[in-house]
Amino acid sequence: MEQNERNTETEIEIRQIVGEWAAAVRAKDADALVKNYADDSVVFDLMPPLQSKGVENYRRNFEGFFSMFDSPLKCEMRDLAIKADENTAFVYSLTRISGTRKAGGETGSWVRATIGFSRRGGQWQVVHEHVSIPFDIDDPKRAANLEPDK
Amino acid sequence: MEQNERNTETEIEIRQIVGEWAAAVRAKDADALVKNYADDSVVFDLMPPLQSKGVENYRRNFEGFFSMFDSPLKCEMRDLAIKADENTAFVYSLTRISGTRKAGGETGSWVRATIGFSRRGGQWQVVHEHVSIPFDIDDPKRAANLEPDK
Repeated sequence: MEQNERNTETEIEIRQIVGEWAAAVRAKDADALVKNYADDSVVFDLMPPLQSKGVENYRRNFEGFFSMFDSPLKCEMRDLAIKADENTAFVYSLTRISGTRKAGGETGSWVRATIGFSRRGGQWQVVHEHVSIPFDIDDPKRAANLEPDK
Repeated sequence: MEQNERNTETEIEIRQIVGEWAAAVRAKDADALVKNYADDSVVFDLMPPLQSKGVENYRRNFEGFFSMFDSPLKCEMRDLAIKADENTAFVYSLTRISGTRKAGGETGSWVRATIGFSRRGGQWQVVHEHVSIPFDIDDPKRAANLEPDK
């Protein structure tokens, strides 16, 4: 197969996995969320610690997050870029997860997300994820309210 | 060539580029720093904005950073993981750049770094970089002082 065709095919596969992840966030479905994550995935998550190892930590963090909301969540992605080879791929995007908290109040921030994939046994798996808000030591609330076009 | 051999070869190439980047930081050499960056590289940098496009912004940020220091910098990397295929690769690590400011005082934080590469025209280029400190809305100074083993 030609390189270009192969890339298109893998890009479609990766785009589908990213779409399933976003659908799982909207449905607050932790099982669906971690479906494509490797057991030994290394996550640089939005909040401390510096890194967390293993899909179970990732699932637990999202279960805690999901439990703060009554209604379905919104999950918006912008500027999704996909770089995919036969067995290694990564994507990056600006992503905004938002919803209405049980405690009251709409919440949501634009975050930067980079996700790394390896194909293992024929299946794409997320082996690395990095999610962040820019660091603003003087005004972290301002950093949490940044907009993509400003 | 066998898949495993190819991976080993590309891993060596990627490791060398990462090593050259770290050496450029230590020497505060902005030309050497951006040597392997694509012109259209998309960077999610430590500080706002959410994203910056193009190697020139990246170079300017580092020139500003370098100018705050008299002496060479230290650049330490831990837990460097490399996932490399024929034309796509990514790496992630915990990285600490530290030094003594002209204004006085030792400075340095552990950051999370994820770097994405594409091979273009036979040459590996950095097409994406994501650097961050975990988000702590109540105490950003604490987040800037996290240690890898705690």
